[in-house]
Amino acid sequence: MKVLGIIVEYNPFHLGHLHHLKSAVELTNADYVVAVMSGNFVQRGEPAIIDKFARTEMALKAGVDIVFEIPTIYAIQDASGFALGSIGLLNATNVVSDVVFGSESGDIDLFSKIADIILKEPSLYRQNLRRYLKKGLSFPNARRFAICDFLKGLDPNEMKRSNNILTIEYLVSLKKLNSKIKAHTIKRVGSSYNDENLTSIPSATAVRKAVLEGKKITGLPGFSSRILEREMTDGRGPIFMKDIFEIMKFKMLTSSREKMESLYGFNEGMAKRMLDNLDKPTMEEFLKAVKTKRFTLTRIKRRILYTIFDVERDFILDSNEYGPQYLRLLGFRERGRKILRIISDRSSIPLISTASKFDRSIQQRNVYVPLAKRQFDLDVKATDVYSLLFKKDNAKIHRDFKRLVIES
Amino acid sequence: MKVLGIIVEYNPFHLGHLHHLKSAVELTNADYVVAVMSGNFVQRGEPAIIDKFARTEMALKAGVDIVFEIPTIYAIQDASGFALGSIGLLNATNVVSDVVFGSESGDIDLFSKIADIILKEPSLYRQNLRRYLKKGLSFPNARRFAICDFLKGLDPNEMKRSNNILTIEYLVSLKKLNSKIKAHTIKRVGSSYNDENLTSIPSATAVRKAVLEGKKITGLPGFSSRILEREMTDGRGPIFMKDIFEIMKFKMLTSSREKMESLYGFNEGMAKRMLDNLDKPTMEEFLKAVKTKRFTLTRIKRRILYTIFDVERDFILDSNEYGPQYLRLLGFRERGRKILRIISDRSSIPLISTASKFDRSIQQRNVYVPLAKRQFDLDVKATDVYSLLFKKDNAKIHRDFKRLVIES
Repeated sequence: MKVLGIIVEYNPFHLGHLHHLKSAVELTNADYVVAVMSGNFVQRGEPAIIDKFARTEMALKAGVDIVFEIPTIYAIQDASGFALGSIGLLNATNVVSDVVFGSESGDIDLFSKIADIILKEPSLYRQNLRRYLKKGLSFPNARRFAICDFLKGLDPNEMKRSNNILTIEYLVSLKKLNSKIKAHTIKRVGSSYNDENLTSIPSATAVRKAVLEGKKITGLPGFSSRILEREMTDGRGPIFMKDIFEIMKFKMLTSSREKMESLYGFNEGMAKRMLDNLDKPTMEEFLKAVKTKRFTLTRIKRRILYTIFDVERDFILDSNEYGPQYLRLLGFRERGRKILRIISDRSSIPLISTASKFDRSIQQRNVYVPLAKRQFDLDVKATDVYSLLFKKDNAKIHRDFKRLVIES
Repeated sequence: MKVLGIIVEYNPFHLGHLHHLKSAVELTNADYVVAVMSGNFVQRGEPAIIDKFARTEMALKAGVDIVFEIPTIYAIQDASGFALGSIGLLNATNVVSDVVFGSESGDIDLFSKIADIILKEPSLYRQNLRRYLKKGLSFPNARRFAICDFLKGLDPNEMKRSNNILTIEYLVSLKKLNSKIKAHTIKRVGSSYNDENLTSIPSATAVRKAVLEGKKITGLPGFSSRILEREMTDGRGPIFMKDIFEIMKFKMLTSSREKMESLYGFNEGMAKRMLDNLDKPTMEEFLKAVKTKRFTLTRIKRRILYTIFDVERDFILDSNEYGPQYLRLLGFRERGRKILRIISDRSSIPLISTASKFDRSIQQRNVYVPLAKRQFDLDVKATDVYSLLFKKDNAKIHRDFKRLVIES
């Protein structure tokens, strides 16, 4: 039995996602598809445009059989932490046989070679890396140049593209876990990750921009537009980065530089930069003022989330060392019930299908209980904070305990 | 030289306040008036209707010569902590010779007798107190009944009235400090503290209610209406308890029962009651649901503020043991400059007239520096959170450092 694993955000689900899903199934000849998906906050350090339950519906409608939530602590990390969590989940199912990554380049062997360099650190590579770091380059950039030097002929600009970076980190994680999952990559079609223009196959960024500007939204399959429309009509979206501006200001104003610097990733005076710019009238202007050459927008946005949720250093370090501690089921299709049962039997971490039974569920198996609770607690808080941003909806509080697993 | 001290909130300043001020000056034959005033959050556990700078203007226009801010840590405590902070400030000036309290009863000797009982705890009183506590009465109620038993003929209902309670605590504080300040009391005229109906001399509650309901506001002197109108036109008010509902929910949802119970005053399952009722659609309904017989609305509202500002137990205990650590000047009239100079020379704690020089100012004199910083830090945060509630105004952030001392 072939089970395809995919790592997604579906923020929101568009034709490019549909194309990737179909091609991946075709390529691997998969019988079933299991997706791990970011919850209410996504890897670019922003709230998702609509919430995880609605995006789960989209995934199921598109043909995904099972959707698990990537615990927030991984979903809002850089490529390496994100990969660790998402690959960790797929691997923990003990059922996924193949993964397919969409990337700007389609050359899985090259990605695998790069992953090996990162893991094994040959001495020539290490020398190069040190040299670039001494020059003042940030770690990701120094690493990229050192790898390209090592693998002669590789274009550093090519390696910089978001999905290439992610694919490399996915392969690193698979190798670290000695995973039996077979990796494939397919070239992305249509617009690139950050492209803001809507074309027939758009980027999620372009779709979100169209929603924000109230323009006509194209490039979504019918079921996806309908779900997006429904969420907007019901007042549960669209949610944007600007919507957490007041919460961010409240949190930072009642915090302190010292406290912020005890959180994950606040080096290079970033806490001070943020605190000094709280008088900016909009989130956009705040971000622009805080940005530096070395602190990209995405890194800043993730750190805003770390502040809002008090993400302490040891929490990320522990999570990255021990991996995700549970498989939170967001939804499944009737035909997925069969593998769900297999996962429930075989998985190395517990399956959580009812949030209110979390404490009991993690008593089984080999779970690092305090870490599991801390990870789940963050997921619940992320949902609660996200739901506070709804324009209307009666069930704003503890939605994680009120929404049942979605069946389609 | 006679210097009258008064303890006020002016939330907002109305004709009753003007009457009290004039009567107090007349009664004491005072040359100058020094007021200590709550900042942006007041003793009933709510944000003030307009901010402390605007309320300082009102006080100065009314004839007060100097206004100091009661540090927030005292301003948002029960009667005993509030009295400790406000009397502590007046005493620390080493210039105030008389204080006049407005209360429902005008009998200062009776108040003084009660204060003595509370301080000296005669054994008969202690027995009564223990008996009432055993019966399950809350401490304030048990104490009230025990005092009335001890002082035969005193009406427990009379003692329960807000300004009587405060007056007793003021006298307790004066006695604790061995203060040389002479205490007087005058009977309040017009509506009582909580009266919601507007009469010619209204209660502040009635004025706030009229503003909330958009009704015609009467009972304010001309300068007070004009300042209130201006603040509203400029988008800095009116601010009500309901305006902190979203911040409260965010704070509680990202907190936990354990964390809330580490704060001051969260006994009897209050944290759980609050967390369980966060799904209520309005602040009013939330408060109603959380209220119990022993937890009055005011106690609950103060605890909401303790949650928003992380007011830990030891912070209140230390503040109540060591007293206020600085005299923060909010404003003065030209004719008050003379006593301001005397206070600056004689006061037992430093005078802060420029917030940005706080750290330097507290290096002088006998200051418990970490506590002073902690108290001032809360004042600054209180102002920042309050200013976030403004509907418009460019200078929302760090207003404490942007607004100069008000001169009139």
